[in-house]
Amino acid sequence: MRAAIEIADKHQTPFGAALAMGDQLFVTAANQTAELNDPTAHAEIMAIRKLGEHLKKTNLSGFTLYTTCEPCPMCMSASIWAKIDALFYGCDIPTISQFLGQIQLRASSLSKNSINPVYVAGNILDEECRQLLANYA
Amino acid sequence: MRAAIEIADKHQTPFGAALAMGDQLFVTAANQTAELNDPTAHAEIMAIRKLGEHLKKTNLSGFTLYTTCEPCPMCMSASIWAKIDALFYGCDIPTISQFLGQIQLRASSLSKNSINPVYVAGNILDEECRQLLANYA
Repeated sequence: MRAAIEIADKHQTPFGAALAMGDQLFVTAANQTAELNDPTAHAEIMAIRKLGEHLKKTNLSGFTLYTTCEPCPMCMSASIWAKIDALFYGCDIPTISQFLGQIQLRASSLSKNSINPVYVAGNILDEECRQLLANYA
Repeated sequence: MRAAIEIADKHQTPFGAALAMGDQLFVTAANQTAELNDPTAHAEIMAIRKLGEHLKKTNLSGFTLYTTCEPCPMCMSASIWAKIDALFYGCDIPTISQFLGQIQLRASSLSKNSINPVYVAGNILDEECRQLLANYA
């Protein structure tokens, strides 16, 4: 989660993500929607794209995704399609919604409807993640 | 929808998408997950990325998305974030699920939870879209 917070802070956005296998960090990414003119360029999506390209495969089972903010249904679905094992987030959607408009569907609820359920847990270093929202949202 | 069906057929995948404003077609795209090693490269996502890059903006309001298959929550959320006006699909998720595993959340249901609701209607040229599923899924 530290790596996700650092990449977000570096890009001056509340949104950072990191993909790791066990203790080994593979990729980090920040939200780049504005700079790429790409509404899909959320941090989690960018991290998944980067790792898929790096490993030359779409199946990312065995990996854990860390993200500063609970993933929206776009990013949660991408995690499901990528067959990621587990996902840990900082601030939850109710907290993010105090700063920015959100799609009101929780990540764990979406995972339950999935063919590849992803283990989801939140509120990890959430005070630091909330500070990112306060600074950059 | 014809353009979405054609691009899907050309790429030998059930999944094609097109973005248009009124009668003017702007971009088409097909699913490219396998060839790009990108689990997020669904047809609708690729079309949205392409149009954002072309227009140099993330706000695609005024556009209509046509897609051969009802969008999964990733693609539906991307349409919501891109502020697309309306979305028309061919086969619905129950039909796609007869061929391929799906996340069981309907597009219209997700749109209702959204800050930017997208008008959603389905079963457009669905027999032709079903044939794509039968041929390529």
